[in-house]
Amino acid sequence: MFEKAHIGILTVSDRASAGIYEDLSGKAIESTLNDYLVSDWQPVYRLIADERPLIETALRELVDEEKCCLVITTGGTGPALRDVTPEATEAVCDRMMPGFGELMRMESLKYVPTAILSRQTAGLRKQSLIINLPGKPKAIRQCLDAVFPAVPYCIDLMDGPYLDCNPEVISIFRPAS
Amino acid sequence: MFEKAHIGILTVSDRASAGIYEDLSGKAIESTLNDYLVSDWQPVYRLIADERPLIETALRELVDEEKCCLVITTGGTGPALRDVTPEATEAVCDRMMPGFGELMRMESLKYVPTAILSRQTAGLRKQSLIINLPGKPKAIRQCLDAVFPAVPYCIDLMDGPYLDCNPEVISIFRPAS
Amino acid sequence: MFEKAHIGILTVSDRASAGIYEDLSGKAIESTLNDYLVSDWQPVYRLIADERPLIETALRELVDEEKCCLVITTGGTGPALRDVTPEATEAVCDRMMPGFGELMRMESLKYVPTAILSRQTAGLRKQSLIINLPGKPKAIRQCLDAVFPAVPYCIDLMDGPYLDCNPEVISIFRPAS
Repeated sequence: MFEKAHIGILTVSDRASAGIYEDLSGKAIESTLNDYLVSDWQPVYRLIADERPLIETALRELVDEEKCCLVITTGGTGPALRDVTPEATEAVCDRMMPGFGELMRMESLKYVPTAILSRQTAGLRKQSLIINLPGKPKAIRQCLDAVFPAVPYCIDLMDGPYLDCNPEVISIFRPAS
Repeated sequence: MFEKAHIGILTVSDRASAGIYEDLSGKAIESTLNDYLVSDWQPVYRLIADERPLIETALRELVDEEKCCLVITTGGTGPALRDVTPEATEAVCDRMMPGFGELMRMESLKYVPTAILSRQTAGLRKQSLIINLPGKPKAIRQCLDAVFPAVPYCIDLMDGPYLDCNPEVISIFRPAS
Repeated sequence: MFEKAHIGILTVSDRASAGIYEDLSGKAIESTLNDYLVSDWQPVYRLIADERPLIETALRELVDEEKCCLVITTGGTGPALRDVTPEATEAVCDRMMPGFGELMRMESLKYVPTAILSRQTAGLRKQSLIINLPGKPKAIRQCLDAVFPAVPYCIDLMDGPYLDCNPEVISIFRPAS
């Protein structure tokens, strides 16, 4: 394992990847992680179109070559025809983590009834955790605030790098073992 | 697309399809949709036995030939040996919508602890949304009240017909884009 | 069917199966069921390592040969590399019961944010219900208290033995049909 945690940030968006607008969602993930983490980490950033083979290739590279212990995707989780991020994620994962999607939808339901349209999931490829977030920048922080408290312990359980967080920003939880 | 929205109502029941009792559940779906919708719509109704090939064929026809933008099934979602509607639904869908089943079970749990026995799901076939409801007539309204607020926007996102609802009956939600 | 209900208790643990520590989780399941049930039942107990083929074989034997109407597993539901109980369960089940995992995670979330790391599921093989519980002894009672109210009716629906419970310990629910 690397000393410094490598964390993949994968933005999946036809329009952002074509340069039609700026990738605010990928930036929102990076700045949220900078807020949370006090231990050293390095983002590995990718921006691609909503094409299932491209998403699968990017996820495999981020895990297998870039050695990311965590990959966070944004975009492609809705019901539009081109939204295929959850399918690509499931295809590259060995085991699924249904609790992440359940909690993010439950959390988003407090704000909008259309939260149930979000098909986002999470799973494990080898010793890495892959989490789908929705594409809207304002939903990024909401969703990460809900699930990130469990992320450092999840990575501990897969023998990944020790992620340390700022307790004034986010209360992560590691059970006494 | 048709001007008038086509909505499939598929009742899956050995006994109702054999004429042993009346299909009250299919009728409950139609009358609930009549309450909700103020835009034009036309029901496309089917009543079949709990046989997986029959269910799959009916779902394919309702989407591919009848051009339904939405198909609502009732029945066959429990743990009895003949209950196979969720399996048939998953077999014909390209992509799944886990949030629908999660919310309906969460909602039904407020009334009965056996809500967790309901295996209902939802998914997308091409540009159509397929939603499983339980078979009991009294659960139909409960479940539709929970998930329908998100349905018109889901169909918008798949370029389907614009569904307009009576705000005194149901508060649907379309995010400002 | 047997007069006396056969209930499988399957502990999946590398360390307990190697004799490194005592299987407290399997014991906790047995004593919880003794608290709940006033009708006759007989535990069929197995203790194996976290190996997917071993888990699948044990589940098949408990259902097909030991004629268990219910099999409760403990262990192997987390994100560690050797945790594969949900995958083994899904492999032997004909149909899945997503409501069990959803409710157990929702319940555990009241206590710890790492509840979302629990990948436990439930499903049906032939006329048997298989439920995954986490490995920690203290989580066993919490999870069973949440889902067991629906279990006797589930087994009724599959024509299994009639399970009768002590209403002072657990409020099971059978809808008036």
